[in-house]
Amino acid sequence: MALYIPDPVAKRLPMYYRYLKETELKQQVFISSSELAQLTGLTASQVRQDVNAFGGEGRQGCGYPVSELKQHIEKILGMSKQQHMIIVGSGNLGRALFRHKAFAERGFTTVGLFDSRMSSAARNKTLPVKHISELERFTAEQKVDIAILTLPAEHAQAMAERLYRCGIRGFWNFAPVDVQLPRDAAVVNVHLDESLELLSYRMENPE
Amino acid sequence: MALYIPDPVAKRLPMYYRYLKETELKQQVFISSSELAQLTGLTASQVRQDVNAFGGEGRQGCGYPVSELKQHIEKILGMSKQQHMIIVGSGNLGRALFRHKAFAERGFTTVGLFDSRMSSAARNKTLPVKHISELERFTAEQKVDIAILTLPAEHAQAMAERLYRCGIRGFWNFAPVDVQLPRDAAVVNVHLDESLELLSYRMENPE
Repeated sequence: MALYIPDPVAKRLPMYYRYLKETELKQQVFISSSELAQLTGLTASQVRQDVNAFGGEGRQGCGYPVSELKQHIEKILGMSKQQHMIIVGSGNLGRALFRHKAFAERGFTTVGLFDSRMSSAARNKTLPVKHISELERFTAEQKVDIAILTLPAEHAQAMAERLYRCGIRGFWNFAPVDVQLPRDAAVVNVHLDESLELLSYRMENPE
Repeated sequence: MALYIPDPVAKRLPMYYRYLKETELKQQVFISSSELAQLTGLTASQVRQDVNAFGGEGRQGCGYPVSELKQHIEKILGMSKQQHMIIVGSGNLGRALFRHKAFAERGFTTVGLFDSRMSSAARNKTLPVKHISELERFTAEQKVDIAILTLPAEHAQAMAERLYRCGIRGFWNFAPVDVQLPRDAAVVNVHLDESLELLSYRMENPE
């Protein structure tokens, strides 16, 4: 698919995907752009523009076919693939993500949890933490697509580069810095602090 | 401040804030729109539009005064206030957020962790989990500004309404549904699954 999707539209794809899944569960066959607008908080004309941009097709007088549009987005998002993930950093957040079950249901399987220090939980074997020195051997022996970084800001960049050298090309970064990698790596930075600051802004400036 | 800031610009404020903090730490006094563009991945003209939209001021030939612009954003974000937060849902993510120290440094203090079931950690008193039946008394006795929702999707909406009735007006929602509340409540929905799906998209569609 040689479709070029502008980044702001790409960022909304997972949201469309979620609402289409919910609509499909309600056994609804078609959805109009105004219904989608109401769900997503966009205008109907923006919905039509977005769907057009990612190559979805509606039917005159009926709206968009829910399942078809959902599958179309699924394909664009590459959701049909099985992705293997490792988590680097076994602090509270790393452990929470490691135990989170909903990712596996979506085809994202966590295959390892690494740290440079072995916590008491790791030593007690209640958590299968591997020492970071095992990283190179581990990634040589099995397919790892995505690294989740849940380590302190000051170690994120160097670790991301090391993971890149191990052949990993997907990075989901929770450290509060943007990591910089060659262009063939995909990075999504999750800045939890910024999300909380946005909430503070919305509390200060009600609609 | 009766400034109306468009939502896409508002969403970028925390990011500008972070880069300005980093620039200030480097003792840099002025920053140009093109430097900010490089940091943020926007164009220089978009940076100028954004700064204009949120009422920041540059100086001809010098760029933006870093500390002044940072403080300006701080004020807009309402970061000078002390906010009290409670977490509802003491699963892995709730516990990780409860133990996260960086929020308190920014003025967001977690004052309670609630659940409808008492985990073994709570019973062993290694975690100060309160039973949800104590919610009404707790919020009557002390100021709570923000509720962090880390509970299953099917309970999120009802719990958000209950918290709203307790007078809470800020909601940071990690449950994988959008919660709907009256307009005087501020809600930021964090959809971790969607963030992972965006990563999958970027891996499928490299720049």
